[in-house]
Amino acid sequence: MAKVATTEALRFMTDCLKAVGTAAKAAQQQAELLIEADRLGHPSHGLNRLEFYVNDVESGACQPNNEPIILKETPSTAWIDANMVLGATASHFAMDVAISKAKQTGVGWVSVKGSNHNGMAGYWARQAANKGMIGMAFTNTSPLLAPTRSKQSALGTNPISVVAPGSDSETFYLDMATTAVSVGKIEMQRRKGEPLPSGWAQGPDGKETRDANLAFQTGCLMPLGGSEQTSGYKGYGLAAMVELFCGISSGSNYGHHIRSWSHSGEGGPANLGHCFVAIDPGCFAPGFGDRLADCMKHWRQLEPTDPSLPVLAPGDKEKEFAEKTDSEGSVSYVEQQIKSSAALAKRLNVKPMSVK
Amino acid sequence: MAKVATTEALRFMTDCLKAVGTAAKAAQQQAELLIEADRLGHPSHGLNRLEFYVNDVESGACQPNNEPIILKETPSTAWIDANMVLGATASHFAMDVAISKAKQTGVGWVSVKGSNHNGMAGYWARQAANKGMIGMAFTNTSPLLAPTRSKQSALGTNPISVVAPGSDSETFYLDMATTAVSVGKIEMQRRKGEPLPSGWAQGPDGKETRDANLAFQTGCLMPLGGSEQTSGYKGYGLAAMVELFCGISSGSNYGHHIRSWSHSGEGGPANLGHCFVAIDPGCFAPGFGDRLADCMKHWRQLEPTDPSLPVLAPGDKEKEFAEKTDSEGSVSYVEQQIKSSAALAKRLNVKPMSVK
Repeated sequence: MAKVATTEALRFMTDCLKAVGTAAKAAQQQAELLIEADRLGHPSHGLNRLEFYVNDVESGACQPNNEPIILKETPSTAWIDANMVLGATASHFAMDVAISKAKQTGVGWVSVKGSNHNGMAGYWARQAANKGMIGMAFTNTSPLLAPTRSKQSALGTNPISVVAPGSDSETFYLDMATTAVSVGKIEMQRRKGEPLPSGWAQGPDGKETRDANLAFQTGCLMPLGGSEQTSGYKGYGLAAMVELFCGISSGSNYGHHIRSWSHSGEGGPANLGHCFVAIDPGCFAPGFGDRLADCMKHWRQLEPTDPSLPVLAPGDKEKEFAEKTDSEGSVSYVEQQIKSSAALAKRLNVKPMSVK
Repeated sequence: MAKVATTEALRFMTDCLKAVGTAAKAAQQQAELLIEADRLGHPSHGLNRLEFYVNDVESGACQPNNEPIILKETPSTAWIDANMVLGATASHFAMDVAISKAKQTGVGWVSVKGSNHNGMAGYWARQAANKGMIGMAFTNTSPLLAPTRSKQSALGTNPISVVAPGSDSETFYLDMATTAVSVGKIEMQRRKGEPLPSGWAQGPDGKETRDANLAFQTGCLMPLGGSEQTSGYKGYGLAAMVELFCGISSGSNYGHHIRSWSHSGEGGPANLGHCFVAIDPGCFAPGFGDRLADCMKHWRQLEPTDPSLPVLAPGDKEKEFAEKTDSEGSVSYVEQQIKSSAALAKRLNVKPMSVK
């Protein structure tokens, strides 16, 4: 692992996006989204993804300097066409609309089409929580999830995120793929040469596999819950619910109609769908923040099965990682990541990322 | 198994609730909720639960003839005190408010306190779908779910339900506990004398158990996803999200503060919290119903891993069961259920349920 100053990684990502023609603000916002994933300990959604975005801009699949527009709205809803901008641009625009509607009517529910990958869903839900609201964010993604009983994939890893502000600086932070695990976790087992736990992925015969290489080649993740016996159909149902809120509502590409997302930037515009929700807890019972903090504290003090593994509240892992990152002022990357970033710098004629 | 005419089971349940002092309309609505569970093939939430409700009315924990009231509202939200009425009364009232707000502003988000168990969550989400809306329903319940790493339970089985209307008479129907399985499934393995699959429940040492008796006594269900290795913390996070929308928002009892729900009607008022949401898909892209139907049809035709087990779309199982029930005009109950219903009839001096 190599350390890079957080500000330097942010600078590098911004520069790369600018080098392919992205205007400064859009490049900055997209880079902030990516660095936040590295900061919270979710490197699969950080610098690791930069080249995908760069390629999409280069190929024209993403048009970073367009403007999203509102196609239709009511006091509490909006339907937005992101006009092929970067996911961060689309999501800032849409979540701002949701928050502003929630301030007026208590709820804002916004559906977006014509967008690109918008990184960590939790980043968007948190925008609402930063304004004192319950935030929710959903997005559809390229097919990777095999519905229960199916040999083939038909839905994405379709994340659900909910973030809410509590008293005593507590933040409820949930950001989860509706597959049992992400592709990144399978890649990690593969690199370590270790078998997969049960319930993660299928082989080409549609049966569960423990072989990390085979799982990676097949690209059929099992839904949260794993097999039918352990209620995997619930994870499948949740992924479908996310699609209902995203592509089915917004008229973007959806489910089996979404292109696969490759390193090459091929396949034309992604035309992904997102959904953003803001809810003002002040519309309900006084004391929301206190009750939330009471729960989070209660969960942490529950007697653990293994005394060395304390019970966590949703978001504790990310909070701890972020505190470590901030105190060190740097993020860590695997060597392969450093190498591919250097190659990207060369290709785009951008100042290379300086390693500590 | 014994067959009972659906209308007769409905009559019997209504009569029992009336016998303990419930007014006719409230008794009828609660009985309709219960019979619907038996009709859809979820007997754990049907006649099986009748005596719990009867006991709560008898003990005064439930006050079936009170009226729910709106405590606070905005164009898109309402905070409701159910005033200890039956769950069905509270939920009809609250979902009607959500639907009416969604007709005005596109979204209705309603938070309820002071309620009682409101049966199958899907029954409530479907009320909105029957009016052309996306419906969602959530409720908190008595502690049964052990957060990941915890020896003790701290959250309920907290269900999530989403129902939406598609073209070609398709209905997306998702109604799922956020635990891996319900207590009912563990009881079923226990009756059959079979071991539990992995990832269902914990023993008193906080470790997963395959012993159905031990699991039943311990009363610590694992969250959807099972162990930490298979992402059980996601199911825990979802259960916590449901609590955020229910008790934490409404100011009802929540999480570890909820009484356990026993057969005896003891423990005072349940003071449960619910959340109901209606969203008008007409606020977004035209063609919602067509895209939903396209997905549901696509999922069903996916190549199955086992040719004898076709891939299902969310709600197919319930739809098939309901068609069977309706064509026979009767529901089936296990012998034990028939016996306890006869005993209840005697105790309440109600005309016994006539078995076919």
